[in-house]
Amino acid sequence: MSRRDVDALLAQLSEGSKLAAARLISLVEDEAPGHRELLARLLPMTGEGYRIGVTGPPGAGKSSLLDELVVGTRRRGLSVGVVAVDPSSPFTGGALLGDRIRMRRAAEDPEVFIRSLGSRGSLGGLSRQTEGVVDVLDAFGKERIFIETVGVGQSELDVIEPTYTTVVVLVPESGDGIQTMKAGLMEIGDLFVVNKADRDGADLLEAELETTLNARPGLDGWRPRVLRTCATRGEGVEALLDAIEEHRAFLLREGRLSLRRREILMRRLRAAVEDRLVAAAWAGGRREHALEMSLAKLVSGRLSFERLVDTVLPRTLLEQIEQGQVSDAQGDERP
Amino acid sequence: MSRRDVDALLAQLSEGSKLAAARLISLVEDEAPGHRELLARLLPMTGEGYRIGVTGPPGAGKSSLLDELVVGTRRRGLSVGVVAVDPSSPFTGGALLGDRIRMRRAAEDPEVFIRSLGSRGSLGGLSRQTEGVVDVLDAFGKERIFIETVGVGQSELDVIEPTYTTVVVLVPESGDGIQTMKAGLMEIGDLFVVNKADRDGADLLEAELETTLNARPGLDGWRPRVLRTCATRGEGVEALLDAIEEHRAFLLREGRLSLRRREILMRRLRAAVEDRLVAAAWAGGRREHALEMSLAKLVSGRLSFERLVDTVLPRTLLEQIEQGQVSDAQGDERP
Repeated sequence: MSRRDVDALLAQLSEGSKLAAARLISLVEDEAPGHRELLARLLPMTGEGYRIGVTGPPGAGKSSLLDELVVGTRRRGLSVGVVAVDPSSPFTGGALLGDRIRMRRAAEDPEVFIRSLGSRGSLGGLSRQTEGVVDVLDAFGKERIFIETVGVGQSELDVIEPTYTTVVVLVPESGDGIQTMKAGLMEIGDLFVVNKADRDGADLLEAELETTLNARPGLDGWRPRVLRTCATRGEGVEALLDAIEEHRAFLLREGRLSLRRREILMRRLRAAVEDRLVAAAWAGGRREHALEMSLAKLVSGRLSFERLVDTVLPRTLLEQIEQGQVSDAQGDERP
Repeated sequence: MSRRDVDALLAQLSEGSKLAAARLISLVEDEAPGHRELLARLLPMTGEGYRIGVTGPPGAGKSSLLDELVVGTRRRGLSVGVVAVDPSSPFTGGALLGDRIRMRRAAEDPEVFIRSLGSRGSLGGLSRQTEGVVDVLDAFGKERIFIETVGVGQSELDVIEPTYTTVVVLVPESGDGIQTMKAGLMEIGDLFVVNKADRDGADLLEAELETTLNARPGLDGWRPRVLRTCATRGEGVEALLDAIEEHRAFLLREGRLSLRRREILMRRLRAAVEDRLVAAAWAGGRREHALEMSLAKLVSGRLSFERLVDTVLPRTLLEQIEQGQVSDAQGDERP
């Protein structure tokens, strides 16, 4: 894709073209050639979209709640984007259809942009895709961007989303499977929602969450809050929207929003550097071949692990990498 | 830890010392200095332990089923090791206690070695730890090694275990949350278990699984099988153990077991190479600093993404990595 084509797409995006947004998202999702540069071009257009993660175990009613949140946000006069990340079922199949039904009202609003991301390739790939799609929606002028993920308390998965406020959705339920997930989820939530709060056990879950949060050291001075909703009846949704806005105001007031944004960008830069390094290491297949040739010696104990790695990564090369020239990117490329 | 200490520990391990096994596992888990070399030293002692993954969504009754499997395997006169991987709740807390109760009978058998791994650091770290602990148990002479993980259909998590046979445990349940996970889990199972098969919906789930498996292209010529168990009553466990042994016999007969073992080792070697490369890149903090210094220019559009990465990874350095000397590790280090 030529520089001129990208320029044209970005201009159309600024003018509010849904087609341009969809096209850019596809480029990001496919990791098409030049997509990194495209993402970098988007950066100056982003920063206004507030990014809200909605996560929780399967069956917690995230999609129904999200439908309510989107409708409620629209009612407040804000534009909305939604990215649903579901690494397990890429689009097809009953589950997504179910989600679509539960997101029906949100999906019917022409001003709401919804995109589902499945899993193509690695988790790292999915993480990059999510960040990129969110950037497109941000540059597209969406003021609130919801990112729905399946959260199971496994931190690397749960924090792949570049969010500012994380809403953890739980239900008063059913077995200790949920228990095991809570520990991990407790770490990442700014707001905790007891959904399906009309069920037995809602009081207990709420009390449990409060106890855990009381024991947990405060994160950045924000005391996470516990709220109750009953998404299918629309109960508690306004209070949840208020709490999201309160957390946003808190981050802005404390100057933490720009810090958070810096962190996200640095993580992306680090990942790009590592990707390039790793790609260079395996280019041409010579190292892979050398490892394969020596595998039998490793297994039989005739060759040590260190020595084998040394053969493909000699110390002199590692020293060159460690000491390699790092310039300061002094000049402005596009003044 | 000195070479001599490691030698002593490995000798004690060969003689059946549980203390030595526990000590080695701790070294692996802590990624203590020299742990990679330790793992390489273990390799020649491994290969006899058959590695069985037991995975499935939270609440599927994996721990109860595993208890039955361990007891049944012991009854067949085989020694057993168990590694429970639970990234969300590191040891403490109600969940693990619950798991311990459900693994009660297995835990009471002095010949069964059980180890739980929590999450310290990254998923990559956890994956390395799991492989290392399994190696220790293998070298310790455990003939069947069960690896229990929470499976939610997110492939990178579900396949971190170095297994030969993967058993996916599902329950006739409750909501489409489970649905969304199935798609991912269908890809990885050699055996599918409908647990809690006395519940409503067991027939339906079994039929669903069979339909999906019929549509799926055969993996390596093995047609995955669907079995029913009711772990809490011990029903169906013997048939499941038979099926595991049948899959093992299939892999052995087809020469696939050694292939699988090679793949696992190659993956570990690749990861070691990449880790070392990445560590070299960030050593000293100069690259991190350079990226941070230029972040503002990136955000404001004055600097392109490519150019910024170039400043910390010049093309000449990448070329050196690509073309770096790769020797063949010709000589035998320990003839």
